[in-house]
This record gives sequence, C-alpha cells and structure tokens, in this order.
Amino acid sequence: MKKIIECVPNISEGRDQAKIDRIVAKLKDKPGFSLISAEPDKDYNRTVITVIGDPVAIADAIPDFVAEAIALIDLNRHTGEHPRMGAVDVIPFVPISGIEIEECVKIAEDVASIVSARFDIPVFLYAKAARRPERILLPDIRKGEFEGMKEKIKDPLWTPDFGPAEIHPTFGAVAIGARMPLVAFNVDLATAEEKPAKDISRYLRGSSGGYQFVQAGPAYLEQRGHYQVTMNILDHTKNPIYRIYEAVKMEAKRFKVEITGCELVGLVPAAAIVESLRYYRQPEGKKTPEDMPFEELAQEAIKRLGLRDFDAKKIIEANLPGAVK
Amino acid sequence: MKKIIECVPNISEGRDQAKIDRIVAKLKDKPGFSLISAEPDKDYNRTVITVIGDPVAIADAIPDFVAEAIALIDLNRHTGEHPRMGAVDVIPFVPISGIEIEECVKIAEDVASIVSARFDIPVFLYAKAARRPERILLPDIRKGEFEGMKEKIKDPLWTPDFGPAEIHPTFGAVAIGARMPLVAFNVDLATAEEKPAKDISRYLRGSSGGYQFVQAGPAYLEQRGHYQVTMNILDHTKNPIYRIYEAVKMEAKRFKVEITGCELVGLVPAAAIVESLRYYRQPEGKKTPEDMPFEELAQEAIKRLGLRDFDAKKIIEANLPGAVK
Repeated sequence: MKKIIECVPNISEGRDQAKIDRIVAKLKDKPGFSLISAEPDKDYNRTVITVIGDPVAIADAIPDFVAEAIALIDLNRHTGEHPRMGAVDVIPFVPISGIEIEECVKIAEDVASIVSARFDIPVFLYAKAARRPERILLPDIRKGEFEGMKEKIKDPLWTPDFGPAEIHPTFGAVAIGARMPLVAFNVDLATAEEKPAKDISRYLRGSSGGYQFVQAGPAYLEQRGHYQVTMNILDHTKNPIYRIYEAVKMEAKRFKVEITGCELVGLVPAAAIVESLRYYRQPEGKKTPEDMPFEELAQEAIKRLGLRDFDAKKIIEANLPGAVK
Repeated sequence: MKKIIECVPNISEGRDQAKIDRIVAKLKDKPGFSLISAEPDKDYNRTVITVIGDPVAIADAIPDFVAEAIALIDLNRHTGEHPRMGAVDVIPFVPISGIEIEECVKIAEDVASIVSARFDIPVFLYAKAARRPERILLPDIRKGEFEGMKEKIKDPLWTPDFGPAEIHPTFGAVAIGARMPLVAFNVDLATAEEKPAKDISRYLRGSSGGYQFVQAGPAYLEQRGHYQVTMNILDHTKNPIYRIYEAVKMEAKRFKVEITGCELVGLVPAAAIVESLRYYRQPEGKKTPEDMPFEELAQEAIKRLGLRDFDAKKIIEANLPGAVK
C-alpha cells in the first residue's frame, strides 16, 4: 500500500496575495504530492496550506518553502489576531494511509534537523513528536509569541529541540510535529431544544468520561432550524466514526429525538470511511477493501451513516494526482 | 435524602478467627450503620470488612476499631501473600447516596487527623483524598510494605499527610482515602470464540480510547461454555451501566454474536440502577424515583438489562437496618 501523508503548514501572511502566491508556489505542481488548498485569512494575517501525497516528496519540498517564507516575511512587522511565533508558524505531518504515526514523527524530526541546520532557526518538536510533556500542545510552546520568545527561549525549559537557543531575527521559531488526522463529524438532531444536544455531547466527549478522542458540543443551525452534536474525532483509528454515530443514536433514544442526518466537515481519510463501513457490511458478509473505488465508498458512506452534503471529493485520497475515481 | 456511605477497612489478620472477631466487633451492632460482611482470607492473612450507613456514625466508630487492631496485631509477626504496611492497612470511604465524593474526602481527612493524633501513627491520604499525584494509587504508597516503610517514610517524598514521619513499631502505617463505588458488570456473549469478547473489550475500555472509567477484558466461563466481556465501572455516575451495556450490544452486532445475559457481581448502589432504568423508562413516559422499592428496582433491572442471578439483596441500601424491601 502506498504511503500517503497530509502536511498542513501555516504561514504568518494572510493579506499580501503576491507574497502568499510566491511562498505557496514552492508546494505547487510538484511531483509526488498535490496542493489541496491555500486559505488566507486577513484578520488572522495567516494562511493555512494543505498538501497531500508521498512523504519523501513532501519532506524534500519543505526546506525551499521555508526559505521563501524567510525571504518574504518579517515578523517584526506582522500583526494579526492569531497567535504566532514564526514566519512559518507550524508544520504538522499527518498519516493518511499506509503509514503509522511513528513514521510521521520520524519525518518531523528529519525535517526539523534539516531546516534548523540550513537556516539557523530554532525548532520545537510538538504533538506526537514532542519530547517533553509541556511541548505536546502548540499553544503552550507558542505562549508569549514572537515578541516574548526572544526571552522565553533562553529559559532552559524552552531550549529548542533543534537549532540555536535564540530566535531568528525576522523568522522567529517554528513548531514541527506529527498528529493524527482530525475528523470533523456532526450529527443532526430533529429538535430546536438545546438539552438533548448538550446532554449527548457530555455523554460522548472524552473530557467528561466518554470516548477519549472525542471533543463534542451542542450547536444550533440557524438556517436549518435544529440542533446538532458537533464533534472532532482526534484519532479515528481508536474512536471510529461508526462508534460515535451509533453512540449518539443510542443516547438520543432517551429523549425520543430522531437523528435526521450527519455531516463530515472538510476532508476525511479513506481509511476512516472503510473502517466504519466494515462495521455495517461485515455482518452482511460483504468485504470492504481498502482500495474500494472512491465513488462507491462515498455512496456507501452516505447510505450507512446517513451523511448529507457528501461526495467522493471529500475523501482526501480522491484529490491525489492520478486518483482513480 | 439520607446520606449513606460504604466503608471497607482491610486488616492484616486473616487466620486467627478469635482476633478477627474481636476487631470486627467494634463495627458490629452499632447504631446508624450495618456490618455487611467480614471476609477473612487465610492465604492473604487479611480480612476485608464492609460496613454501610450514616457517615458520622461510621467515622465515629473507626478510632475504637483501630485501637483494637493496634492491641491485637503485630506486623513484625505477620506473613501473607497480600502486600500490607499496617495492622489496619487501608480505610476507604465510598459515597453511596445523598453524598458526593468531596464530602467523603473530608471524612477521610477528619478520620486521618483523629486517628494519627490519638495513636501516634502515620497516615497517608490516598485515591480521591490524595494530596500528591504519587499517592493516588495505593500500591505506590504501600511499595516496600511494612518492612521497607521504616526507611521509606524518612524520605521527604513520603512524609505522611498526618502523624509522625516514622512507623508505629507494631502497627506500621495506614492509608485513608475516598473513592467511588466500583460496579463489577459482565456481559455474556453467546460464543465460545475469544475474538469478539477480546475486540469488544478493547473498544470499550478507557485505556485504549473507550469509556474513561471502564476496565474490560475477555473471560471464558468454563461451566457455562461461553465468553463474556468482564468489566469494572470505576465511576458509574460518569459511565452508567446502561451506556456500557448498549455499547457492548452495538459492538457485538459486527460479529453477529448474541448477548444472552449480564451480571452485576457483588453489591451495587441503588443510584447506579436508578440512573440506568431512567434511560429505558423515560421514553416510555415512566418516572423512576430515587426511592423506588428495592424489589421493584431489582425486577426492572433484571428486565431492562437482562441481568441473571440478581435480586434486591444485591442492592447496597437494601442491606441497611430498617430498609423497606
């Protein structure tokens, strides 16, 4: 099975489209991976870039991409609502298929080593790549931001994992790491009352004793006129979609509230769909191969999970160059 | 609502029945609480005593009970398979009804203060009463046992929470704390194959991403010829029985394995039954009051959760003096 990762670097430029284009160009039309999106936010003054494809090809492209950000962004002149500490602020590597999180940690370490040596910038390893517990969460590392990092980085507690213990004068510092793909999954409840969505969210979410990798809360959909349980699944291999869907259905029975639909927001890895289809298809004696065509995968997901507004384009791998539709 | 707690002191004597009887007598036929059981184990050389009832009455009885253990047990002459550090080794206070865990922590602190002052013995606060993270788990405190505690207690890390920083020469030291009642819940699978029970256990248990307060594993019942998912629910207020039962049923569908029954092992708090009955009865428009008669509670629990070998005597509160059957 081919190894596929997602990489989602964030740069601290969201207003100057010419600069954004020049930096993003370093990740565009390259062999071995695809640029999925580059979404600038003017208020944040930040752009989120998503690429997917071959791990080696992506890792090889990152240093030139960082070089362009160094050349074009000066954090001394950067303002915006989103906290930031670097011109490239964060580079997460995310396993999509045929690859485990451990290998993404290795890639993060390699890229951190190369980038810090070539540009003399400090790198903090974060998330699954973190080497100290206080570096798991990005906000903890970034606290103080570019301005505060000048002093913070001299504290032995915040000696970077790679590079010098002082920030680059215009670039700052960068966090590089590995994390699981996040699945944004919402379940529609046929009610305009908040209580069922609120209670079910509490039953489900890890922080109140529910499924460990689930974040959940109630959300009212103004246009549609009903509540939903809106969730992030932080590790779909441990908390698959079907389990969370069935758990919401089970809890909703108490309130006699119907489930009218579900949605997957953003892109979803094929493996997350395959795993959940297996739950439903296995008792029917049906195989669900990992390489099921994307169209069929999407149709089955719509049928089994009651998904609305879903199609094959929402499957990450369907966006790869040469993907069989 | 009347406050009811359970208290389960363990003493380091399980062979000399005359001594056991004299110590247990201090918790027997007292106003305000009932002695439920005193179970000596010869191999362990240890007796587990269970009382339930009024928190103040129980707390008031503990010092005289400790005095009798000091008079009759000399740990220098104690051998047995179970680790121990004190003549009374551990005293947990458990909220049953009308009382929160925080109040049981307060009771543990008060009893610790009184007992340490009156008998000059060191006390470690543990579980929910622990004041340091390394004192949450009893085995961590008890490591080294009576013999090793002589030195260990001089380490500033192990200065007791109450009493002197040296062990009592014959009694040793005691851990006093508060914890939630544990619900031992098993679900029968109609199969002699291990895989379904093993997989479902992994899906359910907190340590692999499932429900946080669930411990689960597969167990083969030799006599009955089938597997079960055997579980401990460490906090039934966060992970109610119905939720765990329904989750096992949901996961079992994948394997096309029938659920033929369930069992609750040992005693269960009425509140744990009431909470779960509400899930099933609420959509039928039926109220489930906290003071539902124990017979009715038991019959409904058998019907809704498919319990076998269950009756009202397994409800903790039904064992209280003057309990309405």
